[in-house]
Amino acid sequence: MDMPSPNPIILSKKAELVSRLSDALESGAVIHDEHETRAYECDALTAYKCPPLCVVLPSTTEEVAAVLKVCHELDVPVVPRGSGTSLAGGALPTADSVILGTARMNDVLETNYDDRYIRVQTGRTNLSVTGAVEEHDFFYAPDPSSQLACAIAGNIAMNSGGAHCLKYGVTTNNLLGVKMVMMDGTITEIGGAHLDAAGYDLLGLICGSEGQLGVVTEATLRILRKPEGARPVLMGFDSNEVAGACVSDIIKAGVLPVAIEFMDRPVIRATEAFAGAGYPDCEALLIVEVEGSEAEIDEQLGLILQIARKHNPVELRESTSAEESARIWLGRKSAFGAMGQINDYMCLDGTIPVSSLPMVLRRIGELSEKYGLDVGNVFHAGDGNMHPLILFDANKEGDLELCEAMGADILRLCVEAGGCLTGEHGVGIEKRDLMVAQFTPEDLEIQMKVKDVFDPKWLLNPAKVFPLASSETRRAA
Amino acid sequence: MDMPSPNPIILSKKAELVSRLSDALESGAVIHDEHETRAYECDALTAYKCPPLCVVLPSTTEEVAAVLKVCHELDVPVVPRGSGTSLAGGALPTADSVILGTARMNDVLETNYDDRYIRVQTGRTNLSVTGAVEEHDFFYAPDPSSQLACAIAGNIAMNSGGAHCLKYGVTTNNLLGVKMVMMDGTITEIGGAHLDAAGYDLLGLICGSEGQLGVVTEATLRILRKPEGARPVLMGFDSNEVAGACVSDIIKAGVLPVAIEFMDRPVIRATEAFAGAGYPDCEALLIVEVEGSEAEIDEQLGLILQIARKHNPVELRESTSAEESARIWLGRKSAFGAMGQINDYMCLDGTIPVSSLPMVLRRIGELSEKYGLDVGNVFHAGDGNMHPLILFDANKEGDLELCEAMGADILRLCVEAGGCLTGEHGVGIEKRDLMVAQFTPEDLEIQMKVKDVFDPKWLLNPAKVFPLASSETRRAA
Repeated sequence: MDMPSPNPIILSKKAELVSRLSDALESGAVIHDEHETRAYECDALTAYKCPPLCVVLPSTTEEVAAVLKVCHELDVPVVPRGSGTSLAGGALPTADSVILGTARMNDVLETNYDDRYIRVQTGRTNLSVTGAVEEHDFFYAPDPSSQLACAIAGNIAMNSGGAHCLKYGVTTNNLLGVKMVMMDGTITEIGGAHLDAAGYDLLGLICGSEGQLGVVTEATLRILRKPEGARPVLMGFDSNEVAGACVSDIIKAGVLPVAIEFMDRPVIRATEAFAGAGYPDCEALLIVEVEGSEAEIDEQLGLILQIARKHNPVELRESTSAEESARIWLGRKSAFGAMGQINDYMCLDGTIPVSSLPMVLRRIGELSEKYGLDVGNVFHAGDGNMHPLILFDANKEGDLELCEAMGADILRLCVEAGGCLTGEHGVGIEKRDLMVAQFTPEDLEIQMKVKDVFDPKWLLNPAKVFPLASSETRRAA
Repeated sequence: MDMPSPNPIILSKKAELVSRLSDALESGAVIHDEHETRAYECDALTAYKCPPLCVVLPSTTEEVAAVLKVCHELDVPVVPRGSGTSLAGGALPTADSVILGTARMNDVLETNYDDRYIRVQTGRTNLSVTGAVEEHDFFYAPDPSSQLACAIAGNIAMNSGGAHCLKYGVTTNNLLGVKMVMMDGTITEIGGAHLDAAGYDLLGLICGSEGQLGVVTEATLRILRKPEGARPVLMGFDSNEVAGACVSDIIKAGVLPVAIEFMDRPVIRATEAFAGAGYPDCEALLIVEVEGSEAEIDEQLGLILQIARKHNPVELRESTSAEESARIWLGRKSAFGAMGQINDYMCLDGTIPVSSLPMVLRRIGELSEKYGLDVGNVFHAGDGNMHPLILFDANKEGDLELCEAMGADILRLCVEAGGCLTGEHGVGIEKRDLMVAQFTPEDLEIQMKVKDVFDPKWLLNPAKVFPLASSETRRAA
């Protein structure tokens, strides 16, 4: 993936930049030593690396405003970074950019159980939002696999989801309001602890805008009362297609599990070897979980098992204890780590209409043969959010490029099936050139004009989301 | 409420305009006779009336594009109109505008039960969307009180809600994609039958943009499987405050009824006289409805009744039959009609955090005394979406102005309580001058710049949403 060459004029301003940023922030909040900036050279898409010009770690909204004001005046690009867990290169620096890290902004500012919200600084990790309210039996619903590490800032930037989003929705459905700093340093508030917005719905627009419209420093998040209980059932099937058809039938029946997770044979094998979760030896596994009181769980699972039996499952194991439930989830939660142990992989992220699952899984198999690269499938099947893992060898010349080409074909397949390039990882650098597969030039032009409104100089999170040529032209204009 | 004076240059183009529009559309689709255009002089905010220059009734997206192209070339403003049920003047014409009515665009284009969506032309009424899928046991969730008449076009423009939106969300939570025509005639598609959007979330922005960013001609809507059953319970209380506190406790407990509706004494009395629903004589009533299987209903209602009993209800009546349920809802559904029988009224629409309900109801009572105008309260309490009805006499000089002043005070109170100017009716002309109570000049400037992107000439739905002086300046620029 090409990155723009660093602008020599900006590089020449480094001393002035560092000096002005140091004046604006507390001591130790500006990192410019080349050994130290290297810690920020990539996010979780580690195939691409580039150390930034410098890194700032502000502690307050006002400090973020001061940083952006300086960078705006000096025409220096800024790459906002939560915890750097992006799988799409959403926080990849350019050599002439300032990384604005949210790590020091992790305070809980307000909890309100009557109106069921929490207000936090956005550097706070996803899981520690739930941590702040769980003693009152509340939780924050979106649960990306990286929830132990990923920051709310990144969740908002990418509109993150997770296994339990089938029932509770993704970030945009759980975000009530933000405090945001515009590139020129203006602080603005959007939304609040109430239903709906007067005027245009800018909150919906900001969520998922990949840090390109402003830096979100505070977030008001919906919290929910914990359900009484939850119970998963493990289902094994003879083929991906049959498992896909079973998912489709569950959704069609109108039952709403909190999660329907899918794993195919390569993932089952790797996971079993890694975590020993006791998964059966079969072609495809589903974990279907429902929540509620015992009576509600019994009733919903009754219906789900009835549907599953029609698809001749080779295994149908309803959890009978908390230990068994934990063990069923252990495998799924270890899946990415397990795959990483045996292979380099690229994790894709696309969505499709659920009824296309069998067709899309079959076509992915065909692409796997065509490219000669194995694919593991492990994903949120209930809402059609796929995560094919393409396995490759990073030390083998040409394998990464082959993998990227195959990934692009799979994502084009998602669009062709009536789906979308990205479910929860965002476009980042990974999919910016594929945006033309989803959008017409006119569609892209409207999106870029919206960016013009919020960031006329195109300094925020450069070289992402839009095809590189388009965003570079825009920036130069 | 001031409206801009008609532009004499535009008025002078009427003959050319009508001729070119007639060329673009089928015979009978252009209405320009002054007696006939009068039918479009207002929407449901009947205090304001102004016949448009002419009216067009296109049948297809392509015809809409042709109309907008002509108007764009001639610099003629266009007011999109669904069924004209706006309570905020969202479809009020100006004397120099073309009304673009969606009435002839009411086809079902596609139904897909596997992926649970329906694609319709946006002139289709809300209730007839459910009508098109109910034989397959599906329904479309948002249910504004006007659902028999109101069009999906208007629902999208105003992000409409309804009694059952507590559980299912408002329009934006049930809208998957749109086909939209930009003011210059460009046809664009946004979203689709899949989760999430690549790039910026323009669909979220379009929904609720009050017909000012484009004319939505087709919509892909999420449909849901009908629940097995539903059961309401009627609760009577000694005061508004106690009823408000009960709502707050139900929400806080984490139970999720499909609806919590609130009525106070003036509304109960008028409704009882009008519909004879058998409501008890008390200060405040709640209708709380839950859905699901018999077992789920029993369990949820058990918890809800337990909470209600702590608030010393004067009545607690659980429905025991379909007839009784229908009767309980009959009163609520007749409430607006009943109030209209005995009074002129202005129906407000604001949202507040649910825990502020008791305080806000008390303050509304104080404002009622201050202004000497009675207020009836009937609204969706569960999500804090208030609809105070201010009673006035349209034939009494000064009463409308007094009513408007009091309405503005109530909406400012909502904002002060941490709420929002509008829940589901939109800003329209009614609340455009109050936008400054919710937003800073910088916030409004960003919203107006977004409008610049989609409609640079500011021709779409003029004189709405933003303070009149701002939008007129913009239009002249």
